[in-house]
Amino acid sequence: MSTVKLVRIYFKEGEKTPSHHNLMKELFHLLHDEHKIRGASVFRGVAGFGAHGVVQADDLLRLNVHLPLVLEVFDDPEIIDRVLPQLRELVPAKHIICWEAQLADS
Amino acid sequence: MSTVKLVRIYFKEGEKTPSHHNLMKELFHLLHDEHKIRGASVFRGVAGFGAHGVVQADDLLRLNVHLPLVLEVFDDPEIIDRVLPQLRELVPAKHIICWEAQLADS
Amino acid sequence: MSTVKLVRIYFKEGEKTPSHHNLMKELFHLLHDEHKIRGASVFRGVAGFGAHGVVQADDLLRLNVHLPLVLEVFDDPEIIDRVLPQLRELVPAKHIICWEAQLADS
Repeated sequence: MSTVKLVRIYFKEGEKTPSHHNLMKELFHLLHDEHKIRGASVFRGVAGFGAHGVVQADDLLRLNVHLPLVLEVFDDPEIIDRVLPQLRELVPAKHIICWEAQLADS
Repeated sequence: MSTVKLVRIYFKEGEKTPSHHNLMKELFHLLHDEHKIRGASVFRGVAGFGAHGVVQADDLLRLNVHLPLVLEVFDDPEIIDRVLPQLRELVPAKHIICWEAQLADS
Repeated sequence: MSTVKLVRIYFKEGEKTPSHHNLMKELFHLLHDEHKIRGASVFRGVAGFGAHGVVQADDLLRLNVHLPLVLEVFDDPEIIDRVLPQLRELVPAKHIICWEAQLADS
């Protein structure tokens, strides 16, 4: 088994970068186009709370709330470590966590 | 980078606490109101199995099944360690796991 | 607290096993029926990218894309280690990762 570093980035639907671009698109551009990361997945929460209070999804109310999103990505630790400084420029402090995991590839 | 402890709590839609309150609301109350945890997100699964058999979502059948939910939260390890005993009073044994991760904040 | 091993398996809606069966069903069969794993949850992403390019869900377009799925399961490390070789026969290399976590059970 080889070691990978897994990153989870917490943000919200509709969230913008400091330069007012769509955060999810910028994350995909950085990870996919620039750094050629193998893969990434974004999951949408159905409820959550943060600095701006509690949100809870309900299919009828979906248009009114910005639900939590998490982008999850993993790759070789040295590749992830090269991306992290750029991720920090896009995402508010304390919204990116990472840890090591084992790839069950052999 | 500073160390955080990440917790994942596995439960189901509509699940109640031992005192018959809505589990998700009680978890939010404990984490948000009492312990002032920075943030938390709840994700809903589309399929799963547990002690009560296999469930699988299908938009047409959604009303008939209780899908799996996971609440994810992270904060300083000492803050999480203070909350864990209270979480264990709300959630069945073996449905809470935690591990350490690095906050990519600097 | 006791140690568990957590596994995340990344695949896509509609993905097949090498023997052309539905991958999610085969994973459930292996984990639930054969190995009596306690529980598992499958989460569906709303966006992602991989070897075949970028996908992004939109409720209106849902029928046209195969969204990312992740199956998450944890159990005693020795139980997980017995399942991993069989998981690797079903899932492409580099799509299974695992790490150790603590069960907050006592």
